[in-house]
Amino acid sequence: MHVLILAHGEMPSASLLRTLCEEADLFLATDGAANALPDLGMAPHVILGDFDSVAARAGELFPTAEFIHTPDQEASDLDKALMLAIERGATRVTLAGALGGRIDHTLVNVGLLVKYAGRLDLRIVDDWGETRATSDSLVISGHPGDTLSVAVFAPAEGVTLTGVRWPLHDERLLPGSRAVSNSLVEESARLSVREGVLIVTHLRTGGADREEEDTGEAKE
Amino acid sequence: MHVLILAHGEMPSASLLRTLCEEADLFLATDGAANALPDLGMAPHVILGDFDSVAARAGELFPTAEFIHTPDQEASDLDKALMLAIERGATRVTLAGALGGRIDHTLVNVGLLVKYAGRLDLRIVDDWGETRATSDSLVISGHPGDTLSVAVFAPAEGVTLTGVRWPLHDERLLPGSRAVSNSLVEESARLSVREGVLIVTHLRTGGADREEEDTGEAKE
Repeated sequence: MHVLILAHGEMPSASLLRTLCEEADLFLATDGAANALPDLGMAPHVILGDFDSVAARAGELFPTAEFIHTPDQEASDLDKALMLAIERGATRVTLAGALGGRIDHTLVNVGLLVKYAGRLDLRIVDDWGETRATSDSLVISGHPGDTLSVAVFAPAEGVTLTGVRWPLHDERLLPGSRAVSNSLVEESARLSVREGVLIVTHLRTGGADREEEDTGEAKE
Repeated sequence: MHVLILAHGEMPSASLLRTLCEEADLFLATDGAANALPDLGMAPHVILGDFDSVAARAGELFPTAEFIHTPDQEASDLDKALMLAIERGATRVTLAGALGGRIDHTLVNVGLLVKYAGRLDLRIVDDWGETRATSDSLVISGHPGDTLSVAVFAPAEGVTLTGVRWPLHDERLLPGSRAVSNSLVEESARLSVREGVLIVTHLRTGGADREEEDTGEAKE
């Protein structure tokens, strides 16, 4: 089962959100993230959180939604939504609205990718592309010319990346390293790591990244 | 010596950038980041990068700037600027324009905090506040009510945090954990870790974070 979870960061474009909704079997929104949905003509199946941010008239706005109150402060609303998705049988979860805005929220949300690496097919999408994490191996499907970046926050050993312009062969990656803005040369890339966790971002060709002149070389 | 480096992410507000400039002894801008400066009446001392993004008439726009061409692709422009800052005697470095925009750029730039943790007094600032990393201990000076968040991307052992509403005492922090939106109860907080690296974000009271209703509790 494929679950879409909308968090309260930067809202994806309406067209992307609509596509994501159509692809998902179940649509959860955390707390305040639901506020923008009525204007878009969309309704989540479940609204979950401590309800400190959702509009007071949420029950009226979403008459068919299930409201789940999760005041427990040991986990963030987004992590609670993830746990619920897993409880309900999710095998694949897409997070939207999980980036942008406050950097501390962005970092803890990217941290969730690391937390669930190897346990769940989990990705964060935004209008630029998608971000995933692996502690093992991953196939990234796309188009030649798509941008692919790998980030690490601790040394990663035995990193191999094929199907890209600058392949890596059993290499060591360090935090802040230059594995940014590689690009696909085939329909898919293969990424693997022997020890550590890799965070990989795949930017779609023709996506928002095309607004920048991207030479495929390392950028700040 | 305090060095300010402006990267090519989301531009800080003009007032923040002006304050940062005044505080710094040396102002470096990476490549395309310099483009916005003439309109603000500001000029960097050094422009550094592979010059694939800076305006063609940069020499004319910044007649007093030193241009350093760094085509080497083993490091990002921002890391190259950091290495130059250190070479020129920096003891403290502030990065601006290093967040926002593409998530892969944001992650690799936050990775630089991890790379230099314990070796340099390094921080990333934006209009919300500032983000630093520590593999040892740190004092965060601010005001009661300021928001403080700690993120990790690998398990961190022996984390202690005092001077805040929800202190931590020799605890284990895991990726995606809820150490977000704590708040200062004193003029400063003390953060330390026995094993691992902590990324700490300090949001100023009355800063952009105040736009959200922040109860000081965990958020997605």
